[in-house]
Amino acid sequence: MVSKNQIKLISSLHQKKFRQANQLFIAEGKKVIQELLDASFELNHIYATMALFEGVSPEKFSLVSDDDLKKMSALTVPNNALAVFKIPVNNVFEAQGLIVALDCIRDPGNLGTIVRICDWFGIRQIICSPDTVDLYNPKVVQATMGSIARVNCIYSDLLPVLEKTNLPVFGTFMDGENIYKMELPQEGIIVMGNEANGISEAIEKCVNSKIAIPRFGAIQQTESLNVATATALILSEFRRKI
Amino acid sequence: MVSKNQIKLISSLHQKKFRQANQLFIAEGKKVIQELLDASFELNHIYATMALFEGVSPEKFSLVSDDDLKKMSALTVPNNALAVFKIPVNNVFEAQGLIVALDCIRDPGNLGTIVRICDWFGIRQIICSPDTVDLYNPKVVQATMGSIARVNCIYSDLLPVLEKTNLPVFGTFMDGENIYKMELPQEGIIVMGNEANGISEAIEKCVNSKIAIPRFGAIQQTESLNVATATALILSEFRRKI
Repeated sequence: MVSKNQIKLISSLHQKKFRQANQLFIAEGKKVIQELLDASFELNHIYATMALFEGVSPEKFSLVSDDDLKKMSALTVPNNALAVFKIPVNNVFEAQGLIVALDCIRDPGNLGTIVRICDWFGIRQIICSPDTVDLYNPKVVQATMGSIARVNCIYSDLLPVLEKTNLPVFGTFMDGENIYKMELPQEGIIVMGNEANGISEAIEKCVNSKIAIPRFGAIQQTESLNVATATALILSEFRRKI
Repeated sequence: MVSKNQIKLISSLHQKKFRQANQLFIAEGKKVIQELLDASFELNHIYATMALFEGVSPEKFSLVSDDDLKKMSALTVPNNALAVFKIPVNNVFEAQGLIVALDCIRDPGNLGTIVRICDWFGIRQIICSPDTVDLYNPKVVQATMGSIARVNCIYSDLLPVLEKTNLPVFGTFMDGENIYKMELPQEGIIVMGNEANGISEAIEKCVNSKIAIPRFGAIQQTESLNVATATALILSEFRRKI
């Protein structure tokens, strides 16, 4: 059973201000929940229409009806389980290895997909500008497919980080160097820009290596790649030489 | 002005059976509509809240209210223009160059993104299995961002095409060859499989080159890449050597 007040609290977590006030977020579906449990995210409570998880203490598990789950869920078609987790303390940024920096990524699906892609390519740190969509937005959590448990995402102003780093800073620009022909290092910060406007002017000044993904289709078309696809192609180029 | 019957017809085009019965589809937003006009798609009618397009004959243009546009639109937040186009006649498949074959891609966003990625990499033909989501689904049309005008998508059973082709047939499998270390040709058919089940058994038998995108993250995780991301990474490897 679940009370009306609990349902109200949980559905309020669809909004950032209530996630921040309560320091809680939701994750849905057995796979994502299990990955977060395995990664030692601190569980608040699981609500499910059937017993799905082993090793969860009974006081942190409630069987609920499909109707109640639907009221709590952020999905159009709810899964059979929803879990509430505590938001972990913001991790400290370590200036080593390959790092992805996101300059105002607004679309939750894009952020989630980028986290998943970083996980695939063994990127352990993402720095998100404060105006990047919230990592704990339910759509982001779902789109990460569990990778949220394995990649540290740190929200921080990018400018001071980029200004003081000794690492090379890469950014994608139309007039950048052909990434297929470059020698790429295994340390550095790769900045990915906003979906509509690209990398902001202030951040551009910190980029010391402008790169470009060549286009092979018709030249007259100015259409760009989706930012998540571009991130995958760039990380592939950095990693393929290992 | 637009009649109730017109609104009813247009909103019926959100569904495949009505698109097929009427041989019409909808596209929304100035950019996508303009790209289809430029590519000589046959216009049926444009409905817009303001005059946005030059060179469209007056009998094919109606000014409509925001309310009426909302009733016709397939978008949660409607754009300021919706156009109805005739579905072009299925193009003939030509066995040359690099071709992407889709084995039961179900998600409209994935299909649209794959069309956009193919456009970027200069792929001119996609063969879609009959159980792949409909190209003229409004969500697919939007996700292509206009690339639908530049890539031929042909719906056809894949098996007869793959069985009789002289082109090499590539498919992604966990135990495939490391794509970063292969010499890849500029002709061939690259099969991408269903989101949940991958390439079907019957199609697997036609694959004569099994390929794999290496993972650089933690080995114990079995998570795969999204099919659109995987398509981008594979096409990048085929094209980067030009």
